[in-house]
Amino acid sequence: MTTVSLPRRLAAEALGSGLLLAVVVGSGIMGERLAGGNVAIALLGNTLATGAALVVLITVFGPLSGAHFNPAVTLVAALRRDLPWRTALAYPPAQLTGAVLGVWCAHAMFGEAIWQVSIKTRLGPAQAFAEFVATFGLVATILGTVRFRPDFTAVAVGLYITAAYWFTASTSFANPAVTIARSLSNTFAGIAPSGVPAFILAQAAGALVAAAVFGWLLKDEQTP
Amino acid sequence: MTTVSLPRRLAAEALGSGLLLAVVVGSGIMGERLAGGNVAIALLGNTLATGAALVVLITVFGPLSGAHFNPAVTLVAALRRDLPWRTALAYPPAQLTGAVLGVWCAHAMFGEAIWQVSIKTRLGPAQAFAEFVATFGLVATILGTVRFRPDFTAVAVGLYITAAYWFTASTSFANPAVTIARSLSNTFAGIAPSGVPAFILAQAAGALVAAAVFGWLLKDEQTP
Amino acid sequence: MTTVSLPRRLAAEALGSGLLLAVVVGSGIMGERLAGGNVAIALLGNTLATGAALVVLITVFGPLSGAHFNPAVTLVAALRRDLPWRTALAYPPAQLTGAVLGVWCAHAMFGEAIWQVSIKTRLGPAQAFAEFVATFGLVATILGTVRFRPDFTAVAVGLYITAAYWFTASTSFANPAVTIARSLSNTFAGIAPSGVPAFILAQAAGALVAAAVFGWLLKDEQTP
Amino acid sequence: MTTVSLPRRLAAEALGSGLLLAVVVGSGIMGERLAGGNVAIALLGNTLATGAALVVLITVFGPLSGAHFNPAVTLVAALRRDLPWRTALAYPPAQLTGAVLGVWCAHAMFGEAIWQVSIKTRLGPAQAFAEFVATFGLVATILGTVRFRPDFTAVAVGLYITAAYWFTASTSFANPAVTIARSLSNTFAGIAPSGVPAFILAQAAGALVAAAVFGWLLKDEQTP
Repeated sequence: MTTVSLPRRLAAEALGSGLLLAVVVGSGIMGERLAGGNVAIALLGNTLATGAALVVLITVFGPLSGAHFNPAVTLVAALRRDLPWRTALAYPPAQLTGAVLGVWCAHAMFGEAIWQVSIKTRLGPAQAFAEFVATFGLVATILGTVRFRPDFTAVAVGLYITAAYWFTASTSFANPAVTIARSLSNTFAGIAPSGVPAFILAQAAGALVAAAVFGWLLKDEQTP
Repeated sequence: MTTVSLPRRLAAEALGSGLLLAVVVGSGIMGERLAGGNVAIALLGNTLATGAALVVLITVFGPLSGAHFNPAVTLVAALRRDLPWRTALAYPPAQLTGAVLGVWCAHAMFGEAIWQVSIKTRLGPAQAFAEFVATFGLVATILGTVRFRPDFTAVAVGLYITAAYWFTASTSFANPAVTIARSLSNTFAGIAPSGVPAFILAQAAGALVAAAVFGWLLKDEQTP
Repeated sequence: MTTVSLPRRLAAEALGSGLLLAVVVGSGIMGERLAGGNVAIALLGNTLATGAALVVLITVFGPLSGAHFNPAVTLVAALRRDLPWRTALAYPPAQLTGAVLGVWCAHAMFGEAIWQVSIKTRLGPAQAFAEFVATFGLVATILGTVRFRPDFTAVAVGLYITAAYWFTASTSFANPAVTIARSLSNTFAGIAPSGVPAFILAQAAGALVAAAVFGWLLKDEQTP
Repeated sequence: MTTVSLPRRLAAEALGSGLLLAVVVGSGIMGERLAGGNVAIALLGNTLATGAALVVLITVFGPLSGAHFNPAVTLVAALRRDLPWRTALAYPPAQLTGAVLGVWCAHAMFGEAIWQVSIKTRLGPAQAFAEFVATFGLVATILGTVRFRPDFTAVAVGLYITAAYWFTASTSFANPAVTIARSLSNTFAGIAPSGVPAFILAQAAGALVAAAVFGWLLKDEQTP
């Protein structure tokens, strides 16, 4: 992977993050518009689309940039020295830029105003704890499958997020760039800016705890 | 793949396109009839069926003809010299013929009038932009997976369309032959003929831009 | 495969057919009971369960008996000399016995009367044509994937039936043993006995036409 | 697998069981809250999440501990001498501890009281028979795929449970640790303690019968 030039890596992170957010926000709008007020049905469509798209995006962009699309994942990769810090520091701006453009792309496709700020409140310790768990699980999924079944990582992450949309009370943002970008959409997938800082802190904590736990769980295995 | 004779290639394109359209239109009718007016539920059934069928059809027909079923994909293949122009020019008529017969097959199964013309209006720049994005993503999916995980292409395309039915405002036609054929069904999956030209132009543009972007993104990788 | 003794082969066909029918009929009852009258939602549950179970059952029983669970598939296998006629003739009784016991198993689990006869009418040329298409597609799926991606056959058949539950007007029985067994359940998945003969004829026709078409389409490929 | 130290094995069983229960109970709460009273829609979300999570958890923890998360599976593994009895006896306490903590984790994420006891009655011979069938099928899935397609086991178990949530009248607990833990949640996935003993007995019986049947079915195959 180190043979891919930095510009192409950053383009991959930005483009992948953009398509991911277009899917998350776009399918949320579609679900909300069609589901006749039944939020579970809207969430089913949102879940199917996001899980399926993640598998594709990680398969396509993984060999180029690692397909993080997520500053918390990039942080873990840098701490584990899977990615040099210099490269790692350049990823989050690309991820965030792509993510915001992806939100706007979704708005344009659905004839919504491009500029929006969410007023959907997502606050409180239960929501933050859900984000901790969601990101813990995401990093566990990545570290475990990269270790044992690297070819299966894309599918595993798609399946994990499919589950996490339903089993975490926050519907699993699990990604600081996604969280910020979704604050710019006052639609199904939005989050009011007031909730963003706690989400990001919880995500960082979840990622770091997962890195520690799975560093131990997977360690001895690497010697024989 | 070049060892398959042209008649069998064209038969594969026609038969695969026909089955694809039978699935798209048939599952749309089934969804609409059973969902009691909840369009999101109808779209869930339509999505599941289309995504699942695409995986099967590309697996079965891919080794014979490449399983394009799509003039925009054939155009990109010809431009990239993955397919000789002489073969490429013979594909679209086979695709379109098969697609129309597939629509009629769906009508026959559901006891509908065979000949129909859709009156479902799908117009305007947001819809065209959605088709641009949908086809960009489809070609990105194909080029990326063919490059890195060719055995996974069929699954990736099925997953991509699963996502695209929900995240693009047009529910992702992403295929000129499919667009024309669906104008001949006044059911869930239909599109009024007035919307067809803009859809096809947007699809061609999306395909060409994706071919250019991914030509660059995937290029250097081919040397080492 | 020829090294598996006939009794174990027949046990595999009977047990697999039984579990398949328990899934088809059981998930139909579950869907109908929980869906509050929305047939599309019931069918979504029925589809998910059947498609998922088929992948598992074919993976587990395929190496033992071929995992036909279907006299139409056994007929095609015998005609293609993939299975000796002596073995092939012993399969359908095992399939049918297992299928009927599976229906009764579903009834027992859901506290239904064991013995039932369906009164759900499925008649007419559109329904028969749907069964022709459904079985054509099933045999096409099997022959194509066995030819090009044998390890993927179980997944492909599961995905095909997932699609076929929605795109064929009959919800795709595509199997004479399943059709007869489902006539013994007056629940969601049932079929009144009056409809059974036309379904079986249409299934046999679809299977034979698919065997012929794909015999031609896949033939030349076998030499190099 | 024998090279993984016992503490890490037990940590893997506990953590995996905990995440599994967080998914089962959490997605049940999410489904119930959002589905507007339509139980089938709630069950669809619950099913998607559980099936998807199982694939991930078994992929990640399988190489460490076998990813049983289930005393009935551990019992079969010990009887088949796939796992030494000393190790096997240490698994269930870890599974149960993890499972209970996972339930509490779900309660915390959704702002529910941590300590709950279910009042959802699941009693009677039909329910017990459903658990017998559910566990029979689960053990059949595991033994068959481990035998023929070990890399596919995680996916097969996820698909099997996806089907079993719908085709068994009990929605398929199929696991004594899960059953006990779910008695501590008075939410969608709960079971009143009065129903637990019969469920566990039926699960043990189903597991043992499956081990016997598939011991015979798969046996001869092992010689050549």
